[in-house]
Amino acid sequence: MEKNVDRYLEAHLDESLKELSRLCAQPSVSAQNWGLQECADLVARMLSQRGFEVNVHPTDGAPIVTGYRPGRSQKTLLFYNHYDVQPVEPLELWDTPPFVPTIKDGRLYARGASDDKGQFVSRLFAIDALLSELGELPCGVRFLLEGEEETSSANLKPFVNAHVEELRADACVWEFGGVDFRGMPMQYLGLRGICYVELSVQTASQDVHSGLGGSIFPNAAWRLVWALSTLKDSRENILIPGFYEDVVPPTERDRELMAALPDEAHEFHQRYGVERFLRGTSGGLELAIQQVFEPTCTICGLTSGYQGIGAKTVLPAAASAKVDFRLVPNQRPEKVFQLLREHLDAQGFGDVQLTMLGGETPCRTNPDDPFVAMVIQTSQEVYGQPMQIVPLVGGSGPNHVISEALQIPIVTAGAGSPEDQAHAPNENLQIDLYLKAARHVARILQSFADD
Amino acid sequence: MEKNVDRYLEAHLDESLKELSRLCAQPSVSAQNWGLQECADLVARMLSQRGFEVNVHPTDGAPIVTGYRPGRSQKTLLFYNHYDVQPVEPLELWDTPPFVPTIKDGRLYARGASDDKGQFVSRLFAIDALLSELGELPCGVRFLLEGEEETSSANLKPFVNAHVEELRADACVWEFGGVDFRGMPMQYLGLRGICYVELSVQTASQDVHSGLGGSIFPNAAWRLVWALSTLKDSRENILIPGFYEDVVPPTERDRELMAALPDEAHEFHQRYGVERFLRGTSGGLELAIQQVFEPTCTICGLTSGYQGIGAKTVLPAAASAKVDFRLVPNQRPEKVFQLLREHLDAQGFGDVQLTMLGGETPCRTNPDDPFVAMVIQTSQEVYGQPMQIVPLVGGSGPNHVISEALQIPIVTAGAGSPEDQAHAPNENLQIDLYLKAARHVARILQSFADD
Repeated sequence: MEKNVDRYLEAHLDESLKELSRLCAQPSVSAQNWGLQECADLVARMLSQRGFEVNVHPTDGAPIVTGYRPGRSQKTLLFYNHYDVQPVEPLELWDTPPFVPTIKDGRLYARGASDDKGQFVSRLFAIDALLSELGELPCGVRFLLEGEEETSSANLKPFVNAHVEELRADACVWEFGGVDFRGMPMQYLGLRGICYVELSVQTASQDVHSGLGGSIFPNAAWRLVWALSTLKDSRENILIPGFYEDVVPPTERDRELMAALPDEAHEFHQRYGVERFLRGTSGGLELAIQQVFEPTCTICGLTSGYQGIGAKTVLPAAASAKVDFRLVPNQRPEKVFQLLREHLDAQGFGDVQLTMLGGETPCRTNPDDPFVAMVIQTSQEVYGQPMQIVPLVGGSGPNHVISEALQIPIVTAGAGSPEDQAHAPNENLQIDLYLKAARHVARILQSFADD
Repeated sequence: MEKNVDRYLEAHLDESLKELSRLCAQPSVSAQNWGLQECADLVARMLSQRGFEVNVHPTDGAPIVTGYRPGRSQKTLLFYNHYDVQPVEPLELWDTPPFVPTIKDGRLYARGASDDKGQFVSRLFAIDALLSELGELPCGVRFLLEGEEETSSANLKPFVNAHVEELRADACVWEFGGVDFRGMPMQYLGLRGICYVELSVQTASQDVHSGLGGSIFPNAAWRLVWALSTLKDSRENILIPGFYEDVVPPTERDRELMAALPDEAHEFHQRYGVERFLRGTSGGLELAIQQVFEPTCTICGLTSGYQGIGAKTVLPAAASAKVDFRLVPNQRPEKVFQLLREHLDAQGFGDVQLTMLGGETPCRTNPDDPFVAMVIQTSQEVYGQPMQIVPLVGGSGPNHVISEALQIPIVTAGAGSPEDQAHAPNENLQIDLYLKAARHVARILQSFADD
C-alpha cells in the first residue's frame, strides 16, 4: 500500500508542482491587502476539486477557508495552513520574480513556495495519492486556512471560537514543519507566546531647535529611553513586577529532549557573527534551554528625530519603540500588557502611550501524547530516521487558538528547511523535501485512521 | 549725512532686492554639495564690483571668499557671513519654489533670503550708499564668507588660523541679527558651544528573528538604550563625571541683562504646545537663565530595527543615536567628547562607537565693550529704540574661531526676525527690516570710523 502511494507521488510530482506554481503565482500579501480574496477563492477551488465541502467565510480581514471530506474511519484530522504570504520587498534582491515560480537546482523559487503554500499543496498531494489508491480518504480530513497569519491572525480566534462544532477534529497538523540544518526531521511541539507593543511619546506639537529648547523643553526621545531603561536591566533581567510570576520552568522531560538536540552555538556564530551569547552562556543544553524557555523583552525598533547623514540639531517632539515580549507557559499577553502599563505608570511614565500590536498565548503539545508518537514513528520510513522532538520553539503563532478551542494535540510534519529563505528574498522549496512531506502526510493519515 | 544715506537706500531698495534675488536664485546647499563653487564665484563678483580686493580660497570643502577694501580711517570692520543654505526639503511645503525668489506681502521668499544671503546683501547695500555719498568707505571693511556654516564650518578654523594677519580687524559683525518677536532690535552677544556626537552599536552581522535570538543574542537597540540612560537621569542631571567641571555660572550683570528680557513662557506654550518646562520652571528670569546658561544633553535622533507600520518581530543588529551637548563657558567640545568616551567605557559600554559630528566652543563678547555700546547707540535712530542685550544665546556657531584668532568683540546687527522661517519651508525676509538693517550698518561703519 505505502509502495503504491509512493509510486503515485513520484509519478505525479511534476503535476503537483504545477498546481503549487499556479497558487504561488497568485499574490496574496496580507500586510498589503493584495490578492487575498482571489487567493482564498483559488484555494477553495483546489479543495472543491478534490471532493471537499468548502466554505469561504468572510471576516473583518481576509476570508477564512474551511474544507471537509469524510473518510473511512470516524476520526478527523485537521490541517491548519495559511494562504497569505510575506511582502516581497526588497524586490531587487530576488534572482527571479517572486510571483513567477521558477524551478532551479532542485528547488521551486517563489514567494510562498515554502511558507505556506508549499506546505498546503504537499498535503493535497498526499490526499490525491490516497484517493487514487483507496478511492476514499482513510479518515475524515478538515482544512482550516486563514489569510492573515503573516499579520498576526487577528480574525482567527473569533472565527474558531464561533465554529467549534464545525471544526471538531481529533488531532491537528500545524502549518510548518520539516528538517533542521542537518537534514534531520524535527517534531516541533510548542510555540512561545508573544505580546507585541508600541511605546510612543509626544512631548510637543513640533520639533524644536535643540539650541532653543534643549535646557527647558521635554524631549520625547529621552522620555522613551528612560521609560525603556526601566523595563530590563543590562544583565537581561526584566524589571516589570509580576512579569515572571506565571513562568513554568522546563520539566525534566523537557531538559532530556533538549539535551538530545544538536548544539547550535557554532551555527549562530557563523551565521550571525555573534561572539558571545547573553548571560555568558557558551552553548549546549544551557543555551538551548535559555533560547526557548526564557521569556524575553526585545526592542524590535526605535525611531525619533533626525536619522539622516551627519548632524541636525533638533529636539524631537515624538519618539516610539516597538517591543516584543516572547512568553513562555503559562504567561499570557493580556496580563503582560496590563503589568507593563502599571509599571510605566508607577515609574512616572504615564505619558508613554502603549498600543498592543499583537498577542499570542504560549502553547505546547504533550511530547508523550500517542498521536505525537505515531507521527514520529511514521517518519522513520520516509526520512530513514524518526523525527526528533523539540518541546518548544522560540517563535509564536496561533496554535493556542486551536488547542484551547478544540483541546487536541498539534504536531508538525512538513517540507520546510532552514535554507528555504522564508520571509526573505529568494524564498524556495526543496523539491525532494516536498515529496518526503507528502509521503509522510499520507502515512500519518493512514496510521491515524487505523489507530 | 545720515539723511542722504537713508535717501539713497530708499531710492535703491528695488535694485538691491534684485541683486539679492539673483544671489538667492543660485542654489548653494552645503549638505548636498550643490552649487557651492558657483555661489562662491557669484559672491566674489559682487564684492569685486564694489572695488573689493577678493580672494576665493579653495579648502577641503566649500571655498572661502574674502574681500577687503580700505577706508578713510585706519580701522577695519570684519563682516562674517556665509553663502551656503539649508536643504529645501520638504519641497511640497513651499508655497513658491525655493530658488525662484518671490516678493509677496512685504517679504522676499526664497531659501537663503534671511539665512544668510539677505544679511550679506544688506551689508553690501549699506556700503553702496556710503560709497555713493562719500566716494570712499569711512573705515576699512573686510568680508569673510564661508560655504559650510550650515554643515558646521569644518574648514573655517584652519583657514582663519592660517590667515590671521590677512584677516586682522578691530571688530566683527556676525552673520545674523535683527528683531525679536516684539519687533525689538536685539544685540546677541554670545553663543553656546556644541559637541555633536553619534553613538552607534553593532551586535551582529545581520538582524535576527526575535523568536530565535531574543533570549540569547545581544540586541543593539538595548545596548544603545542602556548606554544612553547612563548619560542623563530623568531629573535632567547629566551623569558624565567632570561634565559640569568648567561651567561658569552667569554673573550678576548677566542676570541683570536677562531680567530685562521679556518672558517667553507664553510664546513657547503657544508655539510648541509644551505644557511644562523642565525642572518645573514656569517662566521669567529663572526660565531665561536655564534656557541658555545650562549645558544640555539632547537626543536629536534615534534609529534601530523596524520603524514601519505594525509589528515586525526583528532583533536589530545595529542601532544609533545622535546626541548634542550644548556647552556653556568655559566648557570645550574636545574635553566633553573625551569625558563621554571615558564614561561609556567605565559603565561597560566599550562596544558603543562614538563619532564626533561637530564641535564649537562657547564664546561671548563682553556686554560692556565700547564697540557694543556704539552699535546699540546707533540702533536708536533706526529702530526708535536702542538694541536690547542678550548676553548668551542657546544656539552655537563658529564665533569662537574669530574671537580666539583675532581677539576682537563680535556683535550682531541684521535683518532677521522670528517669523522668517530660517531652515524651514517658505523662508523669507521682511523687506522693511532689510532696509533698517542697511541703515543700521551704514551708521555702524561711520561711527566706528570716527571713534
